Amino acid sequence: MLTAQLLLYCPDRPGIIADVTGFITVNRGNIVYLDQHVDHVENIFFMRTDWQLTDFLIPRDKINDYFETLYARKYNMSFKLYFSDIKPRMAIFVSKMSHCLYDMLARYTAGEWNVEIPLIISNHENLRHVADRFGIPFHFLPVTPETKAQQEERACGLLQQERIDFIVLGRYMQVLSERFIAAYPNKIINIHHSFLPAFVGAKPYHAAFARGVKIIGATSHYVTTELDAGPIIEQDVARITHKDTVDDLIQKGKDLEKIVLSRAVQKHLEHKCLVYKNKTVIFN
Amino acid sequence: MLTAQLLLYCPDRPGIIADVTGFITVNRGNIVYLDQHVDHVENIFFMRTDWQLTDFLIPRDKINDYFETLYARKYNMSFKLYFSDIKPRMAIFVSKMSHCLYDMLARYTAGEWNVEIPLIISNHENLRHVADRFGIPFHFLPVTPETKAQQEERACGLLQQERIDFIVLGRYMQVLSERFIAAYPNKIINIHHSFLPAFVGAKPYHAAFARGVKIIGATSHYVTTELDAGPIIEQDVARITHKDTVDDLIQKGKDLEKIVLSRAVQKHLEHKCLVYKNKTVIFN
Amino acid sequence: MLTAQLLLYCPDRPGIIADVTGFITVNRGNIVYLDQHVDHVENIFFMRTDWQLTDFLIPRDKINDYFETLYARKYNMSFKLYFSDIKPRMAIFVSKMSHCLYDMLARYTAGEWNVEIPLIISNHENLRHVADRFGIPFHFLPVTPETKAQQEERACGLLQQERIDFIVLGRYMQVLSERFIAAYPNKIINIHHSFLPAFVGAKPYHAAFARGVKIIGATSHYVTTELDAGPIIEQDVARITHKDTVDDLIQKGKDLEKIVLSRAVQKHLEHKCLVYKNKTVIFN
Amino acid sequence: MLTAQLLLYCPDRPGIIADVTGFITVNRGNIVYLDQHVDHVENIFFMRTDWQLTDFLIPRDKINDYFETLYARKYNMSFKLYFSDIKPRMAIFVSKMSHCLYDMLARYTAGEWNVEIPLIISNHENLRHVADRFGIPFHFLPVTPETKAQQEERACGLLQQERIDFIVLGRYMQVLSERFIAAYPNKIINIHHSFLPAFVGAKPYHAAFARGVKIIGATSHYVTTELDAGPIIEQDVARITHKDTVDDLIQKGKDLEKIVLSRAVQKHLEHKCLVYKNKTVIFN
Repeated sequence: MLTAQLLLYCPDRPGIIADVTGFITVNRGNIVYLDQHVDHVENIFFMRTDWQLTDFLIPRDKINDYFETLYARKYNMSFKLYFSDIKPRMAIFVSKMSHCLYDMLARYTAGEWNVEIPLIISNHENLRHVADRFGIPFHFLPVTPETKAQQEERACGLLQQERIDFIVLGRYMQVLSERFIAAYPNKIINIHHSFLPAFVGAKPYHAAFARGVKIIGATSHYVTTELDAGPIIEQDVARITHKDTVDDLIQKGKDLEKIVLSRAVQKHLEHKCLVYKNKTVIFN
Repeated sequence: MLTAQLLLYCPDRPGIIADVTGFITVNRGNIVYLDQHVDHVENIFFMRTDWQLTDFLIPRDKINDYFETLYARKYNMSFKLYFSDIKPRMAIFVSKMSHCLYDMLARYTAGEWNVEIPLIISNHENLRHVADRFGIPFHFLPVTPETKAQQEERACGLLQQERIDFIVLGRYMQVLSERFIAAYPNKIINIHHSFLPAFVGAKPYHAAFARGVKIIGATSHYVTTELDAGPIIEQDVARITHKDTVDDLIQKGKDLEKIVLSRAVQKHLEHKCLVYKNKTVIFN
Repeated sequence: MLTAQLLLYCPDRPGIIADVTGFITVNRGNIVYLDQHVDHVENIFFMRTDWQLTDFLIPRDKINDYFETLYARKYNMSFKLYFSDIKPRMAIFVSKMSHCLYDMLARYTAGEWNVEIPLIISNHENLRHVADRFGIPFHFLPVTPETKAQQEERACGLLQQERIDFIVLGRYMQVLSERFIAAYPNKIINIHHSFLPAFVGAKPYHAAFARGVKIIGATSHYVTTELDAGPIIEQDVARITHKDTVDDLIQKGKDLEKIVLSRAVQKHLEHKCLVYKNKTVIFN
Repeated sequence: MLTAQLLLYCPDRPGIIADVTGFITVNRGNIVYLDQHVDHVENIFFMRTDWQLTDFLIPRDKINDYFETLYARKYNMSFKLYFSDIKPRMAIFVSKMSHCLYDMLARYTAGEWNVEIPLIISNHENLRHVADRFGIPFHFLPVTPETKAQQEERACGLLQQERIDFIVLGRYMQVLSERFIAAYPNKIINIHHSFLPAFVGAKPYHAAFARGVKIIGATSHYVTTELDAGPIIEQDVARITHKDTVDDLIQKGKDLEKIVLSRAVQKHLEHKCLVYKNKTVIFN
């Protein structure tokens, strides 16, 4: 059933919910989901609502304009409108480790995700065989300090050519340039192999082992220019003991990483993530 | 800040949210919380909303009538209205184990809960010293098959005398009569020491040990006439291993039981539990 | 580094650890792992130990005999001896759902598991494409009540031909015959999509939804002739809410199922599971 | 049943387990627990074993000497010997929050812990009523920068007078001096209200809120002179969402803090914690 999804935020004041739900109901939309949140520190109102378009009186290509004119200006809203029949287009960047890539491609191939994956980009050849198994074009773009800028440009070209909406870094072991990140604001999802903000940067499992923690974690977040400091989408943890070596942590961490990353991608695909300043509102 | 909480459910149809939020907004209530849920199997709409009463145009003692007349009849709603300055009155029933009782009284004494606890009832004398430490009247009502009906009547008398709103069974090891349960529908909260529906009935830790499970659990639920089968409010689990004896399970289970029970009591106190048929909607 | 793994159990009595570790040490084996467990209810002693064979004085093909003669008879032990350079051979049975299969094949292809997977058997054609992607022979053995006995015989033939050591049922939706199960005692690993013993049998997610639980689970166990009642190897759970539909449970359950099954397979591969009566000792 | 517990560590080399278990068995001790661990990075062997003393041939007051002479020197071991009939003596330091204190005293009063708690020390009067409820002497030692050294000296005097074995900081909001810490090496257990090493220092819940994490944690550790950096004994976490305010985090964190701290105290009481460099081996 065709639905529209509306995500919005604006300064909080009375009447927003009544106004927005009134707009949908008066125009014969049937609301099937509504959740809202008020951040009382920032005084910001957040809302997500879904409604069925079957009998909706406003043509779908006019909804955005109408809503902008009638409500967004009145409340000084930022908003996004999505339709359930539009498939987002996603690119995957990988390096050498296959667990996140396999997990995403298994979901994709099984039809679990409403997404298109037209390309995989890697700075190593190691995972070409995985892309081949799933019949997805694989682009090898090796990166050195000298070629980095040029290779990012090539990547950008491929992304534009394939009309990519968002990027998933499935253990891509390169830091992206500010320029590249700026081109995809809140549209690059990374998985960091620690419970952020603990163990920022390289080799977090080695650091966790050295510190003697009893629990390890993984964190998916939107990439910003500050390393491992972007808005967190999802985290999870696993218990370890003194018996676990660094290799055990790496091994156990793989299951965390792939599940946490895939959950974040799914939330993004379902348009359930709203970013405000450096934090996320994740609707359920 | 004084707020009203409205919990409701009714057959789902378009316009309810717009109508209810319109009612609040038009009368100058500021909505500070709203969550809704549609059960598409039962076709029932559930909603909870909080609003500030400071400038609300309808006097608080009239809100119930107005809402009944204007909306509840129109939508065939069941609803409950609460005010944040009314403290619910809670009775605790216990037997011999102290962990749940201590956990609740510690929260109560620390002022964490918006509640009055005017009495504790027990079929054993063992925990009188705990009630005494916290200065709460303790009523010893020993139960035998012969005296059970009579003792329940005495308990009912005490509950009425103290205008008790709801009852918490903190490891009370007696099955209550149908008549008693009928007098407090969805107002008796029990903690069962297993992950229901596994291990219904007596000695669940012994059963869990015999089955060789790797995880144990605890379940808080509203008491209904069918044993351990009422609407579940909250559950949690803990990992165990083959090294754990039955005594270890009992010991580890205590932490689960007290936390799960206290979480359920808190949800109930915050008016965040809605029961429909044999299931709960737990607002967050 | 080549190691031997010894798993044993016997009636508990003093001196076993000293004797067994003495045997290894005197013959210049370096113990790199030792864990033991005493079941005081059954009065059974369990032990697992690994030692390096580099300087071990007893030839590897004689160790079993020596240990049998010197210790197993003395203590009335059951024991198994494994060597780290022997790869177990594993068959996978599937039906229509791909998530467990992909998860196992991803680990296998990435070299995470010390195993050979020479064949996949299915009662449906749906997952042939997955087997093909990974280059593993896929045998389609459709099952009807009439052909069941005959198809099991064909399966047995294939398993023998490929010298299969153990079988993993990756959401294989057929009940195996007693005869088949008897041929692979504690060598068939199943994943059941509930937190056993809750929701035995078909459609556990529907049952979980109907009961209104707040947590769902998955259980991997060795298959015995009683349905879903074999020794439990591993369990895990995930939190759900009233918002989750049956389809949501099925979807969320998939991640649980695949991780729980793969963990069980890994424990089995590492020779860390010991079955006694209907329970497991899982060494870590 | 009277048992001895032996905890030891030493440079790893072959034969230690055989030697130690031989010593116990030859002298007619029945081993009821044994676990060992080899840290292959540091090349250190760790071991804990329990044995029944009923028929043990060596008098209990000689065991330490014999073991020192026969094995500790040979293997260059550090070791500690405990007897199950000796109750450790524990002091609790608190400030204003009662949840950890109540949780520990509830366990103590219920007889769950093999411990004596002869005194509570606080820099505030707020929790005197809790100590009074449980009949435990409460010492009010207010601390200012000027009086700190002097008050620590008074505390030390009380601890010595009561022959205190170890100290638990139940949300004691003062940093102890190096001198004080040096007097109780690996004998001061603290609870930090974050998932260390994330959010070291003051106001971790405020920091967690600001960072937008999806999970909060608590960490119990032995106090060392570096703030919040001592050997970790136990950690646990709880899921939060964007809806949780700082006050919600503080509230939800309390349950984590008290359970994590009590688990750590229990492990310490059971002599299951071994500290090496800045990490713990926690036997189970």
